[in-house]
Amino acid sequence: MKAILLKEHGGIEGFSVEEIPEPEVRSGHVLVKVAASSVNPVDYKIRQGLLPVGPELPGILHGDLAGTVTQVGEGVEGFGEGDEVYGCVGGFKGLPGVLSEYALADARLLARKPSNLSMVEAATLPLVGITAWNALIDRARVCEGQTVLVHAATGGVGHVGLQLAKAFGAEVHATASDDHKIGVGLELGADRMINYKQTEVDAYVQSETEGAGYDAVFDTVGGKCLDDSFQAARIGGTVVSIAARSTHDLTPVHVKSLSLHGVFMLLPMLRDDGREKHGEILGELRSLVEGGKLRPLVHEEVFDFQDVGLAHQLLESGKAMGKVALRANW
Amino acid sequence: MKAILLKEHGGIEGFSVEEIPEPEVRSGHVLVKVAASSVNPVDYKIRQGLLPVGPELPGILHGDLAGTVTQVGEGVEGFGEGDEVYGCVGGFKGLPGVLSEYALADARLLARKPSNLSMVEAATLPLVGITAWNALIDRARVCEGQTVLVHAATGGVGHVGLQLAKAFGAEVHATASDDHKIGVGLELGADRMINYKQTEVDAYVQSETEGAGYDAVFDTVGGKCLDDSFQAARIGGTVVSIAARSTHDLTPVHVKSLSLHGVFMLLPMLRDDGREKHGEILGELRSLVEGGKLRPLVHEEVFDFQDVGLAHQLLESGKAMGKVALRANW
Repeated sequence: MKAILLKEHGGIEGFSVEEIPEPEVRSGHVLVKVAASSVNPVDYKIRQGLLPVGPELPGILHGDLAGTVTQVGEGVEGFGEGDEVYGCVGGFKGLPGVLSEYALADARLLARKPSNLSMVEAATLPLVGITAWNALIDRARVCEGQTVLVHAATGGVGHVGLQLAKAFGAEVHATASDDHKIGVGLELGADRMINYKQTEVDAYVQSETEGAGYDAVFDTVGGKCLDDSFQAARIGGTVVSIAARSTHDLTPVHVKSLSLHGVFMLLPMLRDDGREKHGEILGELRSLVEGGKLRPLVHEEVFDFQDVGLAHQLLESGKAMGKVALRANW
Repeated sequence: MKAILLKEHGGIEGFSVEEIPEPEVRSGHVLVKVAASSVNPVDYKIRQGLLPVGPELPGILHGDLAGTVTQVGEGVEGFGEGDEVYGCVGGFKGLPGVLSEYALADARLLARKPSNLSMVEAATLPLVGITAWNALIDRARVCEGQTVLVHAATGGVGHVGLQLAKAFGAEVHATASDDHKIGVGLELGADRMINYKQTEVDAYVQSETEGAGYDAVFDTVGGKCLDDSFQAARIGGTVVSIAARSTHDLTPVHVKSLSLHGVFMLLPMLRDDGREKHGEILGELRSLVEGGKLRPLVHEEVFDFQDVGLAHQLLESGKAMGKVALRANW
């Protein structure tokens, strides 16, 4: 079968289309004919060689997939040949990625694809959807009556977070960097949108919450955005971060008795611990999508798998709107 | 009445015994004849002028009190003249402290004194007991089947934290700096004691938890102890800190998907928000004390109120065992 192999870390010239053997189905796994994938920051960081979790080279990158089951391994329940599925299944050490004609996937990491989404749309949701669910539902326990601030409303994780918090009954404010993105955030259902390039955190906490701060703040960016999140949270409030990797003054965590939750979505894949939770979350996300409460924001230009390098460059440029998707078109 | 006034920030020479008017009882408050108090680090930091929460000078310091109700204000239910009570009631901006013959106290901050404790013993519990309850019960939700690591087993907050985690069914490991303190920690009920001066965090996580880490870690010290707490927590575990006031590398919070809870026990007093919760916790602590599950660790030498400066110096020296107590002996 055809596959995109990363042969060396660095620029996009490390990618190469190669012919490799089809994977054989294993116990607990299914073989999926891959129809679509999408790019997440972890993918280009692995390509660049910046993360220790990447596969041995030459290796196949990318975790997000949508496709059709072609073979079902021993012990797998709930999936049959011909089922359309989606999930985030690999691209890491010991777990091959999906940029190939067929991909072997642990069945616990999959769910049936939302029926009202195309393969390309479905393939943009798994990593960001599970991440946002981990953050807002599992950890921050967002619920009706709460006020929630979501940073980067049109980002991969942000646009799902915004809609999830709304779906769970919160009043949702969100940040973005320009007027166009602010319009998109409002279309996605934000109650208020904040231009963070024009308004400092203290100013919008004052104007939007009368100085009280938010019950929960979702940092999808890291760095200064995490410091701003501490500022934006109310006394006794919650901050969830998917990028708490740097050094921060924790004084606001103390003086406001905050709770900070770090979210590293890949752990169940990397450690083979709790993978069934990912399949369950994807089932919940499917219900929300089919119920009209969640839709993926997919960047207009969709790339063929062979052009994965261009897709990486677009996401790295910061100019993508929502998720950058790839379609299998060998 | 007699009172100890702090006349200027700095050394212990700022304290002075003075004659001042007795406070008048107010709605929602009771007047207490003060029998005992104790020293907490916040008291000497206020004396030194290091914290912005201290009273205007000249002012009365110290929050922890045990004593007898002499007058009951309008609207107060649950307390009558002659009741023996304990609580942490003031010593902050707008809330006078207790180093005086009589103290005015918001009744929501009080509970009946545990019947099996002396006034001196009871006065050592409120601030540290409420802090440990906030941290381990309200925030970390410690329960049966969990493993909990408590830092500074013989410290003011630590010795209560150790016993609370045991009372709620956890397996409790705790740290201390020498053999004597390790013996005291075992007497207080620790399942394992760790000499943190002899064993680095990675080593005891390996030897005591087979490398897995603890479900919950209680940082009662701050600084390096908080970094060690991040190291000692299991993947997906919880760290609670009462001293998260410095700058920290949050990488472990991300890569282990940790939860960090900051606890600043004074907030309900300073903001007049949720004070009734303090009275309720003191009621829970009384039940634990009367049930033999919690006892205060009181430093051998007990000081007269007039010698509050010496009591401060002892706690500041780091040589106290448990809480430093003061008795009214005018």
